[in-house]
Order: sequence, then C-alpha cells, then structure tokens
Amino acid sequence: MSATVSPLAPKSYPDMPAIKGLRMATAAAGIKYKNRTDVLLMVFDEPASVAGVFTRSKCPSAPVDFCRANLSNGRARAVVVNSGNANAFTGVKGKASTDLTAKSASEAVGCDVGEVYLASTGVIGEPLDATKFAGVLGDMHGAATGSFWLEAAKAIMTTDTYPKVATRTAEIGGVTVTINGIAKGAGMIAPDMATMLSFVATDADIAPDALQALLSAGVGATFNSVTVDSDTSTSDTLLLFATGKADGQVRVETADDPRLQGFRAALNDLLKDLALQVVRDGEGARKMVEVTVTGAENDVAAKRIALSIANSPLVKTAVAGEDANWGRVVMAVGKSGEMADRDRLAIWFGDVRVAVDGERDPSYSEAAATAVMQQEDIVIRADIGLGHGTATVWTCDLTKEYVAINGDYRS
Amino acid sequence: MSATVSPLAPKSYPDMPAIKGLRMATAAAGIKYKNRTDVLLMVFDEPASVAGVFTRSKCPSAPVDFCRANLSNGRARAVVVNSGNANAFTGVKGKASTDLTAKSASEAVGCDVGEVYLASTGVIGEPLDATKFAGVLGDMHGAATGSFWLEAAKAIMTTDTYPKVATRTAEIGGVTVTINGIAKGAGMIAPDMATMLSFVATDADIAPDALQALLSAGVGATFNSVTVDSDTSTSDTLLLFATGKADGQVRVETADDPRLQGFRAALNDLLKDLALQVVRDGEGARKMVEVTVTGAENDVAAKRIALSIANSPLVKTAVAGEDANWGRVVMAVGKSGEMADRDRLAIWFGDVRVAVDGERDPSYSEAAATAVMQQEDIVIRADIGLGHGTATVWTCDLTKEYVAINGDYRS
Repeated sequence: MSATVSPLAPKSYPDMPAIKGLRMATAAAGIKYKNRTDVLLMVFDEPASVAGVFTRSKCPSAPVDFCRANLSNGRARAVVVNSGNANAFTGVKGKASTDLTAKSASEAVGCDVGEVYLASTGVIGEPLDATKFAGVLGDMHGAATGSFWLEAAKAIMTTDTYPKVATRTAEIGGVTVTINGIAKGAGMIAPDMATMLSFVATDADIAPDALQALLSAGVGATFNSVTVDSDTSTSDTLLLFATGKADGQVRVETADDPRLQGFRAALNDLLKDLALQVVRDGEGARKMVEVTVTGAENDVAAKRIALSIANSPLVKTAVAGEDANWGRVVMAVGKSGEMADRDRLAIWFGDVRVAVDGERDPSYSEAAATAVMQQEDIVIRADIGLGHGTATVWTCDLTKEYVAINGDYRS
Repeated sequence: MSATVSPLAPKSYPDMPAIKGLRMATAAAGIKYKNRTDVLLMVFDEPASVAGVFTRSKCPSAPVDFCRANLSNGRARAVVVNSGNANAFTGVKGKASTDLTAKSASEAVGCDVGEVYLASTGVIGEPLDATKFAGVLGDMHGAATGSFWLEAAKAIMTTDTYPKVATRTAEIGGVTVTINGIAKGAGMIAPDMATMLSFVATDADIAPDALQALLSAGVGATFNSVTVDSDTSTSDTLLLFATGKADGQVRVETADDPRLQGFRAALNDLLKDLALQVVRDGEGARKMVEVTVTGAENDVAAKRIALSIANSPLVKTAVAGEDANWGRVVMAVGKSGEMADRDRLAIWFGDVRVAVDGERDPSYSEAAATAVMQQEDIVIRADIGLGHGTATVWTCDLTKEYVAINGDYRS
C-alpha cells in the first residue's frame, strides 16, 4: 500500500541542516527489501550524550534490551538502524545478532560496544542475519556525511508512505543550537510490523542525565499521546543525542538549568511534529483526529478518557465515514472507567457543540456537525464537567484500507 | 448488512418449551423500524424472583438506571424491551420516558411500577417517545403466550443477522426445571448501536438473593468473556427471572444450597451458549476465535492478557486474512501490562505450536499454521510459563465489513 502516499502527508520537507559532530550514511544490505536502502549508520566522531525512551512491552525486541543496557553509560559513538527485520522474539539468536552488529559497528567506527546503539524494524520472529552489516558498516563510516537527514529517514521506512523529518533551533545562553529528528511510523506491514522509531540529535552541549530528563518529560504530551490502533510494538525506540559541538555554548549539567527554557520548548515542539507525522501516516489513514478532554477529575483521568475515545473502533470508523456520531463518544467516555457524570457531559466536533447536560444539544445541527466531519483534520472535544484535568491525544480514522493492509497474508 | 446471515450462524434452532408462569408477546410499535416487531412484553402472572447484571459504563442508559433501582425489590411482574432507540444519553427526557413506559406496563399488567423492568436498544441521544408503548401494551398483555421465545428474540434484534435462543434443563431436588434465554448481540448499527441484551427465565423456585449470586458468578466466564471490538455499551443488560412454578420443587433460599449444583452448571452452560452466539454474530464476523491463556501469574492476569489478544486490531485483522501471524500475539501479550517473560512464552494456533522459549518453534510449519487459520473456528493459545493462571475469552475477526457497517452515515 506504500505506493500511494497518505493524503495527510506534508506538502514539503524542511531543509535539514547538518548537526556538527554527527555524520550519517545509508546502505542497501538486503535484509529483506530489494532496490532500496535498509541500513542507517549514525556516527559521532566524539562521544555524544545520549538519552532514550522505549516500548513498555513486556516482550521487547533484542535491540531494545541492548540499548537499555548501554544507556547507563550515557555516551554514544555509533547508531545502527535497519528496516526489514525487527529482531524481536528471536530468543538467544536475537542477542547474538545484536552482539555481532555492535561488534561490527565498534570496529568500523573505532569505539567501544558500550557506545553503540541499535534499532531494528520489520518482521517479528525471524532471525536477523547480522553478518550482512559487517560487510557494509566500514564503507558507510567512510562515506558518512552531515547533510543526510532525508536519506536517513528513507532508509528506516517500512510501510511508511513518506519520510518524516523535522528541525528546530533554540538559544542556550545566547548560542543558537539546532535540533533535528527523523521518525518512522506506525505502519504495521505484512508480515508483522508495529514499530515506531525516532532519532533526534542536537549540537547542544547537555549532560546525559539532563538530556534524559528533558526527553522523558517531552514524550508525555507527544509520542506518548499518539495512537494508531492501540497496539504497542515490541520495538518502539526514541533516542536523543547531543554532540556538544555548538560553538561557545557552556555545557548544561542539569535539566532545571534556566538556560534550557527555549531548548525544552523547541525539543517538545519537534517531538510533537514528528509524532503527528507518524499519526498522519497511520495505516489506511484518511483523517487526522485530535481528541481533547477537559474537566476530568485530573490530568491522568483526562488522558485515559482521551485514549478511550481515540482507540475506540466505533469512534474511528465513524470518523472514517464522516459520521458525526457523538453517541459513540459518550460510549467511549463511559467505558474508560474514569469518573464521569452523564448529565454533566458536553461534546464538540470542531466548534459545533453536539451534546450538553447529558443529552443532545438543543440547537444541534446535523448539517453543521457533518460539515466538520468532512474536513481532513478533525477535533473532538469532551468536557467531563467534574474537575480541571485536561489532555490531548491524536489518532487517525479506521478504514477498510487498514484492514486490507493488516489482513493480507504474510507471504 | 443484516440481510446477509452470518456464516457463523447456528444451522438450526432448538425447540423452546414454555416456562410456567411466564407469557410473552411482541408488537410493532413503530419506534424506528418499518414492517417488523420492535417491542417485547414479558409477563409474570405472579411475581418472579429477579436478578440482573448491567454495563459498567459510567454513562448508562435510562433503562439501566431504572432496572438497577428496582432490582432491590427482587420481584418482577413485567419486562418491556424495545429495539430502535436505546433511550441513552437522553437526559431528563430519558427518565420521563422510562417512568411513562413503566406506568403503562404496570397498568396493562396490573402491578406495581417497582415490579417492572425495562431495556432499550438502538439510537443513542434521540428522545424515546414512550407514548407509543401505551397503545400496545394492553393488547400485548391479553395476547401473551408461553411458547413465544423465537419471536421474542426476533423483536429485540437490531443489526443481528439471526435471533439467539437457548434452552437447558436441570434437576433441583429431583424436580426437573427448565431454563430458557434469548439475547441480542453486538451488532453496532448505523446510527450508533452497541448493546448486548439478554433475558433468561426459569420455572425453578429460587430466592432473589440466591438468583443474583448465581447470575453474578455465571457471567464471568460467559458474557464477560466475550468481546467484539472492546467497545462497551451504555445499555448492556442481562436479567434472570425465576417463576417458581416447577411442580413440587422446594424453594431454594441460598446460592450455596447443594441442590443447585446441576442448575448452576446448566445456567452457566446456557449463558455461554448465548454469549458465543453473540460473538458469532459480531459485525462483519467471518471467524470465531477462542483465546486461551495458561501459565499466567494468576487468573486475573490471564484474563487481561487474553483480552489484550482478543481486542488487538492487528490480531483480529490477521485472523480475517487467515494469516498465522503469531508475532502479533507476542505483541499483544507484551502490551497487556501483565507479568510476562519473553523467553518462557509459547504460542499455539489450534494444535500447532508456532513459538516456544521466546522464539519461533524449531519445527514451525507455515503450511500447518495456515491450515488452522483457514478454519471457521480458530483457537489461539498462549502459555506465559510463569504460574497457574488461566482464562478463556472469545472474539471474532476484524473485517472490512465491520468498517463498512460502522463507517456508514447515520442518515
């Protein structure tokens, strides 16, 4: 299905400046795909600070285990990402494969295996032949260049219909720094892919602990607030690197340093940009849906209710059908398990209030509500009327194309 | 879509004997549908014991509120069920409508409004015109008859493609008693239906508290173990009545009475029968899926893992595509949040073990696994390898027809 670009794809790509201290190269190692790149090498010529967040799955992939173990070192020299095989649920072979890949990368780059990070996306359960990396990583290290972000984004795609890139700048103590990021999305292909990967790098000089605090805080309202189909990958990985090569910037040691104010905002904005690009490329997606819950008991309750709405197959099929079916939003609020009072509930589609005080809005207009649903970007809001908790999450519609993409045979 | 009967429908219906002390009638009150019955009246000429379980939604329908309030009385004389309008999220009008319906029923039958039970299924958010019942309930009371179960099941259908009936017998203290039940299913139609209703009656003589204990225990492994799409209705209602008219049976006062052993088993079997009929008529369903989890930390964990598998859109689309995609089962185990150890996990499709010890089974045969997936009834089993918790749940596949049925405009 990836021959057809999502109608929700961005109309153009930003220019992606190089990040000082980071070079990249891609190659076609023939993991699974033909006639396309499937390996990305990121090289930090001097150690970069690194932070990471990973899937909450109890059955994580071998690369996730590998990255988690290395993260305590706080330093990165090389990142190897492949598409075509997730190296997930591959038992002892999986660990052997990550060990061999890390060894190949450390030899190519000239670093310790404790400074290598790995991510894989593709088939689950098939052993990954890591010998294929050994042959290409040395050449990749030699060829790696700074202005390569769009190509990097392409090499990690699976059923994504477009590459996902974003860039921002910020000032730290008067010095301008750059943040770049790429992501691959919740395209869950035959055979069995369900992985979100994202790699973000900055030339800012920030200590690993501070970087981790920034990233952990930043994902809550961004990558952890998007859902395509409620299915959590074994392999979700988001890594953030800081090369510290911005001219003249004095190193930031702690996340509460006031100099980080602008950087934090720029980072969070970039994370949101990438996360929403992932949703806009959700399998079979034709509509982007923003779900905002207000008036919940607290923010945690608001997010649970918002996800209950965003994950409801009945809400998502209604959006696909351009049907202003607010009864299903009532249903989804009711099933969330969070405190709700039917008779205080109000619901909007866009700016059109469709329900209030536990019943249909007295001035309800089917035509006005339907006009909202015919847009490409749809906002659903539910006010619970009980407290001050708020949350916003993003999802896409559930279409026949989603079923077609995921119901095909693996062969 | 209901013009086409589900391929999973039963090939024949059982003869449904009358239950002494219960008479039924149906009518076409014109709530929404044309040329079909849409109201069911159940009449107990003398008060029957009653027990009930209801949706856990925080936004329940007005009839659910009404039944919950009356249930403490423990007695039933009349039940009014309509299809076409759920009387849910209808605010103060909803309560006015249940009050008027109950008053009409109490006058027709000659009982107290505290002995009336109500259930509605259909559109959410549209006021229900209860004056339509007033005109038909008197005639229905006169015409009501005992051998009317299949017609009763038809009157409460919405997008169901077949009526759902079941019957069992049991002995209580040497006296044979009968249990009959009907259900309507998780057909969630345009406009916005998502309701499971079931009514079960027996001629056994069982006190209300004992009846409630039997029912509350019985739903766990039956109606509360089925899922079509994880969406919980505002209106789910299951009522159990005992007329006490079986000749010579001495009344059972408590649920721990050893005389109930056979009755409990027969009741649970009937509840399971009806619940599975609901799944087999899930919207767009082409496959019935039984998911069994063994070896979990405890039974509660096992059920959560089983539901995580059964509700996963990726698992359900794989079943629709006859794809032995066990990687998605790994994913669903991992995302459940329950304790799991990737390297102890084993997975079967039917009798074919596809994964063991955290990787693909060494003797894995794609052909054998695919042969299982091509069946109409599919068993998925996951052994977590940690403890003795077990659970079984049932679901159906997720097809393009599901999206079509639920993505249509309401108009």
